[in-house]
Amino acid sequence: MTRKIIIDTDPGIDDAMAIFFAFQAPEIEVLGLTTTYGNVPVEVSTRNAVTLTEIAKVDVPVAMGVSVPSQIKPRPFPDFVHGEDGFGNINWPAPKGKAIDKSAAQFIVDTVRENPGEVTIVALGPLGNLAKALEIDPEVADLVDEVVLMGGTAIEYGNVSPVAEANIMNDPHAADKVFTAPWQVTMIGLDVTHQVLLDNAILERIKKVNPTEGGFLFDCAQFYIDFYSSRFDMSGCYFHDASTIAYVMDPSLFGIELGAVRVACEGIGIGQTIFAPQEMSFPEPYWNDVPMTQVCMEVDSEKLLSLFEETLSK
Amino acid sequence: MTRKIIIDTDPGIDDAMAIFFAFQAPEIEVLGLTTTYGNVPVEVSTRNAVTLTEIAKVDVPVAMGVSVPSQIKPRPFPDFVHGEDGFGNINWPAPKGKAIDKSAAQFIVDTVRENPGEVTIVALGPLGNLAKALEIDPEVADLVDEVVLMGGTAIEYGNVSPVAEANIMNDPHAADKVFTAPWQVTMIGLDVTHQVLLDNAILERIKKVNPTEGGFLFDCAQFYIDFYSSRFDMSGCYFHDASTIAYVMDPSLFGIELGAVRVACEGIGIGQTIFAPQEMSFPEPYWNDVPMTQVCMEVDSEKLLSLFEETLSK
Repeated sequence: MTRKIIIDTDPGIDDAMAIFFAFQAPEIEVLGLTTTYGNVPVEVSTRNAVTLTEIAKVDVPVAMGVSVPSQIKPRPFPDFVHGEDGFGNINWPAPKGKAIDKSAAQFIVDTVRENPGEVTIVALGPLGNLAKALEIDPEVADLVDEVVLMGGTAIEYGNVSPVAEANIMNDPHAADKVFTAPWQVTMIGLDVTHQVLLDNAILERIKKVNPTEGGFLFDCAQFYIDFYSSRFDMSGCYFHDASTIAYVMDPSLFGIELGAVRVACEGIGIGQTIFAPQEMSFPEPYWNDVPMTQVCMEVDSEKLLSLFEETLSK
Repeated sequence: MTRKIIIDTDPGIDDAMAIFFAFQAPEIEVLGLTTTYGNVPVEVSTRNAVTLTEIAKVDVPVAMGVSVPSQIKPRPFPDFVHGEDGFGNINWPAPKGKAIDKSAAQFIVDTVRENPGEVTIVALGPLGNLAKALEIDPEVADLVDEVVLMGGTAIEYGNVSPVAEANIMNDPHAADKVFTAPWQVTMIGLDVTHQVLLDNAILERIKKVNPTEGGFLFDCAQFYIDFYSSRFDMSGCYFHDASTIAYVMDPSLFGIELGAVRVACEGIGIGQTIFAPQEMSFPEPYWNDVPMTQVCMEVDSEKLLSLFEETLSK
């Protein structure tokens, strides 16, 4: 039984890992890629998404999405993490194909309507396209199987402020709409992705048996790994985006807590995913009557990385 | 060598524990009590502070302080925690004495100026009086030995929202001024006070050997313990305020992390003490160039409670 997914993405080096991972997973059918700004401008992420489908020789549509946050000023692009091209400045040639003539949000709505109850949205960037889809067609929330997103943090420190993670920070208002809509959201945030460390040894082994995808990922990842090793004195990189695909394939890799998540949209705490565990109640009312998010708090890192390696080595 | 302290307080049942604890500690000289709203209106907390000096037969001045938050609307008083009288509704008679004819903030300024470098301010409520003292005389920050405050939380959940503790929530703007002023602040927040559980057995033993203070505390505490046991299914109460006195007597009871603390003053995260550990840096600039707060993260609960019991049993 395969799971049908749409990947909303801003490739992005770890997005590329996630996308190739999903393309090669027999348990997953990718219905399309929708793009957003985030790691790079949306024009670049769209071109990159098309590039990834061409490298993998997979025929799935790419739909371009929003280019700016819904209510705040755009933040600078992190070219020191992903390179200006989003692929670690490897000068990859432009793709032949291009995006379809439909917005990301409309593609999400139409695809979910065509597959009621069957589509999981895997979101790897800021959440503007998902918020827009809810705006166009609020009933979509009931028709989606699950929203699995990489973003936020419950108890781990943030990566753009002590409490905020970059994807959520890039559009806190959209994120708050996603966490409060009546669909099942699963949050894969820094609480777990900071526990999963991908190193060059794994990428080299994948490259050896799968030179096409593996070679491309290895080349992109050198810039990304250089950033992490110089900034945090670690030998490897966090496995942010691709952890979502592992979750879709095998949720049992993760330990989950249930609770209400609201996103701070103002002040110095902006971008924080404030988590109220299901069993606690507070005088402040903002977490009442909010759907329960599945927040991933634990992960079997070793098994997860093995799943990635095995899947990409096929 | 004794430490000179001013206790800024809103008695309050756990405030009463802290004040009697300090009065009986040979290592501590209490120079005065300054009062604030918080657990009860400031008129009640002032009357209660005078009452406590009379019960303990200790001749220290009481100076009345601010009655409302500096910039937000007042929050409701938690009479379900401390009773309407702040002493668990025990109908204690009114005191004979009254507050001095000087504001809390002015008393702090004058006392610190008279004892340069020697005064520790122990703050047990919202921080309006401390912020006001800094406004009246900013140089006071350099002349204070240490500010030891009960309030906030770094990684533990809050008690008025998932991220906010009640004292800080009651005046976030004042708290942010206190955490960013150039004095040594030590934060004793829920990270440690939720690890220290006072039960009736200890209060009964104290009452037996010290019927005056011990009897009063036991009587007050029944209301407080009832609240905690009905709300959180625990047999006892958190030892919030009195933990500060234990810290002043013996800082080695606590494990400390250094970092910058800023207080969220807007949005759903209002009242959060957002902690940036010294060794981490973030793109968001608000924690740069902020003095290092000593945030208590660990506590030897057993030793702390023994110190309380021994001191009050003398």
